[in-house]
Amino acid sequence: MQEAVCPGSFDPITNGHLDVITRASRIFDSVCVAVMENRSKRGSEVFTVDERIAIIREATGHLPNVTTDRFHGLLADYMAARGSKVIVRGLRALSDFEYELQMAHLNRQLNPSVETVFIMAAARWQFVSSSMVREIASYGGDVSKIVPPASAAALQSRFPAMAQGRQKGAPGRG
Amino acid sequence: MQEAVCPGSFDPITNGHLDVITRASRIFDSVCVAVMENRSKRGSEVFTVDERIAIIREATGHLPNVTTDRFHGLLADYMAARGSKVIVRGLRALSDFEYELQMAHLNRQLNPSVETVFIMAAARWQFVSSSMVREIASYGGDVSKIVPPASAAALQSRFPAMAQGRQKGAPGRG
Amino acid sequence: MQEAVCPGSFDPITNGHLDVITRASRIFDSVCVAVMENRSKRGSEVFTVDERIAIIREATGHLPNVTTDRFHGLLADYMAARGSKVIVRGLRALSDFEYELQMAHLNRQLNPSVETVFIMAAARWQFVSSSMVREIASYGGDVSKIVPPASAAALQSRFPAMAQGRQKGAPGRG
Amino acid sequence: MQEAVCPGSFDPITNGHLDVITRASRIFDSVCVAVMENRSKRGSEVFTVDERIAIIREATGHLPNVTTDRFHGLLADYMAARGSKVIVRGLRALSDFEYELQMAHLNRQLNPSVETVFIMAAARWQFVSSSMVREIASYGGDVSKIVPPASAAALQSRFPAMAQGRQKGAPGRG
Amino acid sequence: MQEAVCPGSFDPITNGHLDVITRASRIFDSVCVAVMENRSKRGSEVFTVDERIAIIREATGHLPNVTTDRFHGLLADYMAARGSKVIVRGLRALSDFEYELQMAHLNRQLNPSVETVFIMAAARWQFVSSSMVREIASYGGDVSKIVPPASAAALQSRFPAMAQGRQKGAPGRG
Amino acid sequence: MQEAVCPGSFDPITNGHLDVITRASRIFDSVCVAVMENRSKRGSEVFTVDERIAIIREATGHLPNVTTDRFHGLLADYMAARGSKVIVRGLRALSDFEYELQMAHLNRQLNPSVETVFIMAAARWQFVSSSMVREIASYGGDVSKIVPPASAAALQSRFPAMAQGRQKGAPGRG
Repeated sequence: MQEAVCPGSFDPITNGHLDVITRASRIFDSVCVAVMENRSKRGSEVFTVDERIAIIREATGHLPNVTTDRFHGLLADYMAARGSKVIVRGLRALSDFEYELQMAHLNRQLNPSVETVFIMAAARWQFVSSSMVREIASYGGDVSKIVPPASAAALQSRFPAMAQGRQKGAPGRG
Repeated sequence: MQEAVCPGSFDPITNGHLDVITRASRIFDSVCVAVMENRSKRGSEVFTVDERIAIIREATGHLPNVTTDRFHGLLADYMAARGSKVIVRGLRALSDFEYELQMAHLNRQLNPSVETVFIMAAARWQFVSSSMVREIASYGGDVSKIVPPASAAALQSRFPAMAQGRQKGAPGRG
Repeated sequence: MQEAVCPGSFDPITNGHLDVITRASRIFDSVCVAVMENRSKRGSEVFTVDERIAIIREATGHLPNVTTDRFHGLLADYMAARGSKVIVRGLRALSDFEYELQMAHLNRQLNPSVETVFIMAAARWQFVSSSMVREIASYGGDVSKIVPPASAAALQSRFPAMAQGRQKGAPGRG
Repeated sequence: MQEAVCPGSFDPITNGHLDVITRASRIFDSVCVAVMENRSKRGSEVFTVDERIAIIREATGHLPNVTTDRFHGLLADYMAARGSKVIVRGLRALSDFEYELQMAHLNRQLNPSVETVFIMAAARWQFVSSSMVREIASYGGDVSKIVPPASAAALQSRFPAMAQGRQKGAPGRG
Repeated sequence: MQEAVCPGSFDPITNGHLDVITRASRIFDSVCVAVMENRSKRGSEVFTVDERIAIIREATGHLPNVTTDRFHGLLADYMAARGSKVIVRGLRALSDFEYELQMAHLNRQLNPSVETVFIMAAARWQFVSSSMVREIASYGGDVSKIVPPASAAALQSRFPAMAQGRQKGAPGRG
Repeated sequence: MQEAVCPGSFDPITNGHLDVITRASRIFDSVCVAVMENRSKRGSEVFTVDERIAIIREATGHLPNVTTDRFHGLLADYMAARGSKVIVRGLRALSDFEYELQMAHLNRQLNPSVETVFIMAAARWQFVSSSMVREIASYGGDVSKIVPPASAAALQSRFPAMAQGRQKGAPGRG
């Protein structure tokens, strides 16, 4: 039984994340999507960890071997505590690559028994990120093609005034 | 009549920006330099949107087919409201490339009738950025070779004490 | 009347090329797809310049403002001889970027009145290249989803034995 | 039973390759190291496919769940013929990344049921490549710290004169 | 007498920094490690400039031709004031490269008599950064393998509660 | 006395090379420009090693502490034989960076007492390469702005027919 852990902020989960999780679920016996509680980002977050987990559960409901969890502190410690040996990370554009390599080397140093594997998101999601999704949604833009329905619905209730304002007159017009 | 829109923060316009705008003005019938009002950057900005537009106007005064404008919200919405179909972006170093590709894909997704074209700044401006210019000026450094005179004058009035302090004794000396 | 020139080897034209040409044809009054005769690559080419032009014509037949041409020697000289001022190049992955910047700076140095603009291929063609297409086709692989029908047909007649051998037993099986 | 396939030229296997294979063998039930017969590289190769497989067998003898194989043609076809669903590739420096992403997208397009996962070599092997190893060995340089003993021995018998000449006087000295 | 200046934040000095300083000390007659006082980072810093200099002194005590200093303002001004002509910077991963090139061009523009040279950290420190070190230490993780003993000791006294909490129960475990 | 060695093909020396050599000559007591005899490139070279050295001598005649030499085999061996401890390499665009890092790590492994330092060419030479220069010259293009006079003269005598043909009618026109 090889479990893979997909760590991340998932604020909220995008089609890129979902694509990587789905591919991981075909390779490994089970996949745990682990939402990281990041003290330093608190305040700039759109959804609480609980909300993010609820959205992930809805978006991955059709994948029987995918579970969710939360953690704070070092990923290497979380992996040790969970007894899992494989971290799965999605690879998108170049900047990702740098950061991901650095994190993988770090986690390897902190916990040598853990291995990080990288899976590419599909080409059409290569340019999607949660921060971009949050920015579009905050201006009332349509993100329904780049996030799962659960994320789209949650973003719509979070930024309702904007969406309404948009119906009256597009931003940037006045 | 093909109008191209050059969006950006321009806080303040540099020789790199001016180089790209000049080249765009030779390719397209008209070029609109559109200053983005960025809610999240407010506070860390040196010039107001009005000041930035005034500087751009002075710096581009010799280019008859260049106009200025301002927008907030999504660029894709602004392009639709304006009825323009071409976004022009300058390409500098690598990190630009990543971000620019991501933004271009995003804008394409939000407004498929809009196309982004990239123009390289001249080699000697490849390493100039507004943030670097702001930092040098804030320490009383000389930026007159990397920004248009209008930007240099505006920076000098914004950071006068520094420039004065520098005449007495260079920073880092004491 | 602003004509843009799309130079390249096009051996053969891919969906990535076609995507960039199509986008260019919406921005500029006319687009000339110019096949470069490369002395140094002769021998490793799959199609003659004439064949490549015929394939491009078929693939772009629905775009009324797209023409084809051929050139040898320096692109900067060809642009001067043609009296065109805009080069259009597609941007794909990172390695492209480096090479393209270098060529654009070179062409600017050789012919300062010419400007290079870059257009991104759609995300789903970001990883398609002619060399990859040639390799897959040479092994009897199916390239019909990543090249226009005209290219696919030409490749199939060029590598017929392979395709046939594949029907009997896939390569790598024996 | 999840088998992963490690495809490559392995001319010869380096410590970087061995590191990735070892890590893969801890993640997957079994790992098949598949040597690619590359028609276009023939002539510039140092070892035959048979020799390369023999070296790999010796270097991986201590890993019970690692096997070897050979293939020609498209990797996607080989994966289908073998019935394996996971390709493992090592990630080293940046140039790798570009090529690897392109190949992974290609293989996905040719065979959607196959997934490519990337594993980083250890930091100290990030800059080792077979071509570099071949060049050093051809000049009589010492590669024993960057390849397994089996590769070092094979290189030494392939380039004996050089090694001998080196004992008499280092290259570049005369 | 050629003195080289190694500028940086060093909050705190890592094995990567120390490796670069050591290599520089073999190339140049003397090396001055100059801690930059960064107004904009104040608050997010872990150690004061005085503390950082004390740690560097301890970590470089065995290198007789290495001294320490502090500066604020522009590096170009500091170099002029000091009368030094060579800046030494370490090169790690790709993102570094971009930023470092930009800074080197900037410093060259501000002070043409100063030259920046780059030295690579050893492969095993390529992925170590002060920010990563601070984050690990703040969660009670073990950084003793990636920083000099002086940095490790200073971090341990700065984050004692965490380290203690870790003894009772690792973060992320509950 | 610290001597730095600038190794390379220099076929022929460009303004980018000359810029790096000049900067190195200000940092180190003496600089030796060492032309590498590359067996594998023989045939594709434009100038012999002797010709290249003659061109370099002419181009660097005004720099009293610059000498020239030639070597074959491994650079690490050449450095040992020469008793020099510092390799100087120019940094241009990104692809350079990758290759240079790899070579520097390799040379360090083969000869730990040797250090590689990198110096950036000026921004305006960032996109110049010998291969580009050779290609332009072979088509009769003007390279006098991107190479020293000695290189320009040598290229003109090597490709005279082309230059003559160009006076009658630019390539690509017929």
